[in-house]
Amino acid sequence: MGPEEFRAAGHELIDWIADYRARIPQLPVQAQVAPGEVAAQLPGRAPEQPEPFGRVLADLGRIVVPGITQVQHPRHFGWFPSNASLASVLGDVATSGLGALGITWQSAPALTEVEQVVVEWLRELTALPPDWQGVIQDTASSACLVALLAARERVTGYSLTRGGLQAEAGPLTVYTTAHAHSSVPKAVALAGFGLANLRFVEVDPVSYAMRPEALAAALAQDVAAGRRPAAVVATVGTTGTTAVDPLAQIVPLARQYGAWLHVDAAMAGSALLLPEMRWLVDGVEGADSLAWNPHKWLGTVLDCSLLYVADPDHLIRVMSTSPSYLRSAVDGEVTQYKDWGIPLGRRFRALKLWFHLRLDGAEAIRARLRRDLANARWLAGQVAAAPGWRVLAPVNLQTVVLRHEPPGTVSADGAVLDAGALNAHTLGWADRVNASGAALVTPSLLDGTWSVRVSVGAEPTERRDVEELWRLLQLASRGES
Amino acid sequence: MGPEEFRAAGHELIDWIADYRARIPQLPVQAQVAPGEVAAQLPGRAPEQPEPFGRVLADLGRIVVPGITQVQHPRHFGWFPSNASLASVLGDVATSGLGALGITWQSAPALTEVEQVVVEWLRELTALPPDWQGVIQDTASSACLVALLAARERVTGYSLTRGGLQAEAGPLTVYTTAHAHSSVPKAVALAGFGLANLRFVEVDPVSYAMRPEALAAALAQDVAAGRRPAAVVATVGTTGTTAVDPLAQIVPLARQYGAWLHVDAAMAGSALLLPEMRWLVDGVEGADSLAWNPHKWLGTVLDCSLLYVADPDHLIRVMSTSPSYLRSAVDGEVTQYKDWGIPLGRRFRALKLWFHLRLDGAEAIRARLRRDLANARWLAGQVAAAPGWRVLAPVNLQTVVLRHEPPGTVSADGAVLDAGALNAHTLGWADRVNASGAALVTPSLLDGTWSVRVSVGAEPTERRDVEELWRLLQLASRGES
Repeated sequence: MGPEEFRAAGHELIDWIADYRARIPQLPVQAQVAPGEVAAQLPGRAPEQPEPFGRVLADLGRIVVPGITQVQHPRHFGWFPSNASLASVLGDVATSGLGALGITWQSAPALTEVEQVVVEWLRELTALPPDWQGVIQDTASSACLVALLAARERVTGYSLTRGGLQAEAGPLTVYTTAHAHSSVPKAVALAGFGLANLRFVEVDPVSYAMRPEALAAALAQDVAAGRRPAAVVATVGTTGTTAVDPLAQIVPLARQYGAWLHVDAAMAGSALLLPEMRWLVDGVEGADSLAWNPHKWLGTVLDCSLLYVADPDHLIRVMSTSPSYLRSAVDGEVTQYKDWGIPLGRRFRALKLWFHLRLDGAEAIRARLRRDLANARWLAGQVAAAPGWRVLAPVNLQTVVLRHEPPGTVSADGAVLDAGALNAHTLGWADRVNASGAALVTPSLLDGTWSVRVSVGAEPTERRDVEELWRLLQLASRGES
Repeated sequence: MGPEEFRAAGHELIDWIADYRARIPQLPVQAQVAPGEVAAQLPGRAPEQPEPFGRVLADLGRIVVPGITQVQHPRHFGWFPSNASLASVLGDVATSGLGALGITWQSAPALTEVEQVVVEWLRELTALPPDWQGVIQDTASSACLVALLAARERVTGYSLTRGGLQAEAGPLTVYTTAHAHSSVPKAVALAGFGLANLRFVEVDPVSYAMRPEALAAALAQDVAAGRRPAAVVATVGTTGTTAVDPLAQIVPLARQYGAWLHVDAAMAGSALLLPEMRWLVDGVEGADSLAWNPHKWLGTVLDCSLLYVADPDHLIRVMSTSPSYLRSAVDGEVTQYKDWGIPLGRRFRALKLWFHLRLDGAEAIRARLRRDLANARWLAGQVAAAPGWRVLAPVNLQTVVLRHEPPGTVSADGAVLDAGALNAHTLGWADRVNASGAALVTPSLLDGTWSVRVSVGAEPTERRDVEELWRLLQLASRGES
């Protein structure tokens, strides 16, 4: 396809996207297709001859749109927000159109240097330590794996250059809580530590945050038994309840035992743009790394995760490769982001952040985040005041964890009396909401019982949408929809 | 930014991309900026207020375009091709515009099912084993790490569920050649094996392919010494010379010793669309995994790497996570690609493959690949016939490794007599070519001496461009440009 054919098709596609975004509020939030239904509409073999663009575009509307859950919908309250702001989409379009190749600084200097600048812009906007340096990763899952590999290599003095983990004495241990994201145990497993060496530190029964005293005890006990603490993964804004592990108290413990402290702020990082929310990371300057996802609440289209590290030289030593065909005369003077993560080839992801921040401006983004925090507080207030309803966790951010409790299922002081009936009721009404297509919420286990997470923060979500959701939740809890 | 503002800006951007693509032949191939020059043009802080789109677009042309090496240029012969076909760009634009969230099947059924269909289309087009299943990864680097983690867990019977690598007896060993991509030693190191347990198996001095007898000897020796072979990484189309490790002879050895066989066909995978090139992977049906990059020669815009595995259930067991907030009623019936790789959140990458194959058609893609193979053979013929020039490795694909040898630097039978003078000459003329901006080639070490790689296969590269390159190489070798 040549530039002129692209120009014609591109204009059609831009119109299609603008029209699609405008009609999202009329679509069901949750995809209404059955397993296999999308695949059954596609031919079994690739076409030998070119198809007209109109046919492909028609299939996008006919097959793909009904086949995705509309996370850009104003009544998407599922999982966490996954905003794809149109300003960032423009940047991503530019990235694709440029077709730059990020393997070394030399292959695309601007890919490296715009990235350096925008991660510094975001460091400054979020008030993270001025001497930290950052890099864009695909997701917080990968960033956590990279951090744990860096941790493993720090505690072992670069065992990867020798006999690897097997040659190391004493089991290496990692500490987090059962409320950490599933990517944390996964990263522990993939990095070779073994899940038997992962400690789920006790959490506070009300805040669901890591108990520093329990961490201290676990560290002391492991060291006494000849084990070697390698890393602590603290979560600021857990997936289940947006609990905040107290960094100020965790930092001294990690330092005392020489363990790497990685902060998973995948969701909460966006909140750090607000000065009034920076208490979330009090003490962070003593951590070794922190990751957060602009592709969530901030709204830079997926995939875009920021990993900041206090000691880039260490990370580079763990990750670096330098074959002859990638060497150049400027190697000592420039940043080679290939040595800051797993992939060699990197997409020009910085453009979507650059466009997003420039076209929307920081002030408007902050206003939107504050709107969402206020909406979540409003909903929590409604729920707390409504008979038969309960807010189950502190509303630290924009997520409300709630439950409707039919008579006889829960005692006055909140003890579950009939878990079977309560769970069936909760899953039933949540499913009614989701199946209706009118809104999307996420059932989630908390203390062994099903609850429902309402995660406010889709870019188009206004107060009226949260009010409508609250009406739908109440209807569904009565068996209506 | 709302849909109407996006529509207006999007049309401007599409025109900008079409114009940019049309004028690439007039641009210097290699970026002409000095370290720090791009960053110095950007403000130190993010803007508080929105900027007009025209200003951002102007910066794209003024700062970014001169700051990237033009790998979409018809005289880009560096590294490997990194084609961003405009058909695939349209697919990627759709991906960004849709803003779908790939975390589970439920979050975007079409993201999963279109991916299943297109990876099967490509499996069929490349004649890989019918019972293999595939997944899109970002790069072959990540795919190699995933394969080595799967290998580690197969040989240890899922040590990650227990005490990890440290609790395993006998060092685990991995086998490849010194010509493998730098991502292979990196993956060995990151997976925890330790570089001391990586064996660089001897290669044939003419073909640079792994010598099966040397592999057999290394395996036998390690087993006799109590070591446990975990994996063999064979390369089909090495980065340096496009050497082809002989799978048919490697497969029985890997099987005999119970080692996982991963095939890195990052570059050569595209060639498998051509029946006459399928000899490259003779014997592949006995391998455990294979990765190749449509984002290279095939031309599906970065990042897009395919990983096929013979035993998906094993991969899933290594990679799976299933927290409550990601569970759904259809879990047993659907594919959950989060359990096929490292990241949880996945971009809708299948659309760019879907658009690319449908809008260009397989037949036209095959014709382009054949054009490039013929162009490389033509160039190799010119070089071989020219006095003072030498082709240094078999031209298995579209890459020619060559050298110009001033009198006295190399003997008649090809032995290097004066490495210092030869290296200075080679790096000098290659740099003259690259600095001129007229074409881009890659200096590369081969047998300890600098050579130059000419990698044909940019989408717009025609015979006339290769002829012009050959003229430029000859000029540069005489000190002119």
